[in-house]
Amino acid sequence: MTDRLEAQLAFVRELDRLKLVLRRTSVGGGSRRENSAEHSWHLATMAVVLAEHAPPGTDLERAIRMLLVHDVVEIDADDTFAFAALADPAVAQAQVERERRAADRLFGLLPDPQGAELRALWVEFESGATEGGTPTARFAVALDRLQAMLQNAGNAGGTWREAGITVAQAYRRMAPIREGAPGLWPLVERTISDATTAGFLRHG
Amino acid sequence: MTDRLEAQLAFVRELDRLKLVLRRTSVGGGSRRENSAEHSWHLATMAVVLAEHAPPGTDLERAIRMLLVHDVVEIDADDTFAFAALADPAVAQAQVERERRAADRLFGLLPDPQGAELRALWVEFESGATEGGTPTARFAVALDRLQAMLQNAGNAGGTWREAGITVAQAYRRMAPIREGAPGLWPLVERTISDATTAGFLRHG
Repeated sequence: MTDRLEAQLAFVRELDRLKLVLRRTSVGGGSRRENSAEHSWHLATMAVVLAEHAPPGTDLERAIRMLLVHDVVEIDADDTFAFAALADPAVAQAQVERERRAADRLFGLLPDPQGAELRALWVEFESGATEGGTPTARFAVALDRLQAMLQNAGNAGGTWREAGITVAQAYRRMAPIREGAPGLWPLVERTISDATTAGFLRHG
Repeated sequence: MTDRLEAQLAFVRELDRLKLVLRRTSVGGGSRRENSAEHSWHLATMAVVLAEHAPPGTDLERAIRMLLVHDVVEIDADDTFAFAALADPAVAQAQVERERRAADRLFGLLPDPQGAELRALWVEFESGATEGGTPTARFAVALDRLQAMLQNAGNAGGTWREAGITVAQAYRRMAPIREGAPGLWPLVERTISDATTAGFLRHG
């Protein structure tokens, strides 16, 4: 076997560990927390199904690859609860540094330029919630937010209820969907409204 | 919201249940069995990383989509242990019928022609171990076999050892890799040889 293939297999074996990284959200029914590998599969498959809701200029195949690797850094850096990072800049900054080191090591396992290409997908995803994000990254981030919303709505409020999240916080977290998957915004409004009525989100 | 979007969301919500379908293989370290959602993510990401090993004529983007949906029928039909189906034609036939009914219901949730398109990906995958399979399906099936091999080799023999699998049975199961990812065949030979030496596979 070539060194190149050995390097690719080292990365493939590392991927297995993403199955052990737990998110704050739960699988349907709430029987256990969701892991980042199955979450990534859900998102990539959603990109196929919901492709028509992507904004103009989206490269769908790139969005799918982006969603496949967007959480790979969590193998070393673990999952950071979104609302904790939103509430505390120090938490957010520590996360950025942990993830950068993780990207160095993990994508660095791959031969060049493959490692750099996959890392670029992750970097592009990370800008998907900002004005400067590409349409592809904005669509990918929109699906990431949408899936968390669907898991929480389907699990009697899930992490929204556990963490006492307010309507305003939920809207702020879901905001990237407005640009990243505009046709899905009415779904966000309806879901947040229903969750508020049900007492899953706090007023404010 | 349109009926079309409601139908797509019904499918997206069903997908969540694939996270609860357990395979016979375990995650690295053997701490728990692997589920079909995280397995599908592993395969789709492997397709990105190992793309250069696909046979001529492979449509890589189609292979990725195929791997994302190839196990969706297990939401209704559950996972069937490969070696059980190999050993007993009645087990294999019952599986075929269960999966066809599952495909009717699950892909039928989607609007047309989207449901038919995703179902066609699954049908194409199912022929990937046969002479008539497309290069895309052969590559997808090769990765499916390869991943199970890596999980077993990485878990002290895993299901090979638990089920008393022989060298000949392992080679028969891995055979699709010879055509579906020819550059990876030396890896199969080395892994089976090492597993035999280690006592993870029975002689015969």
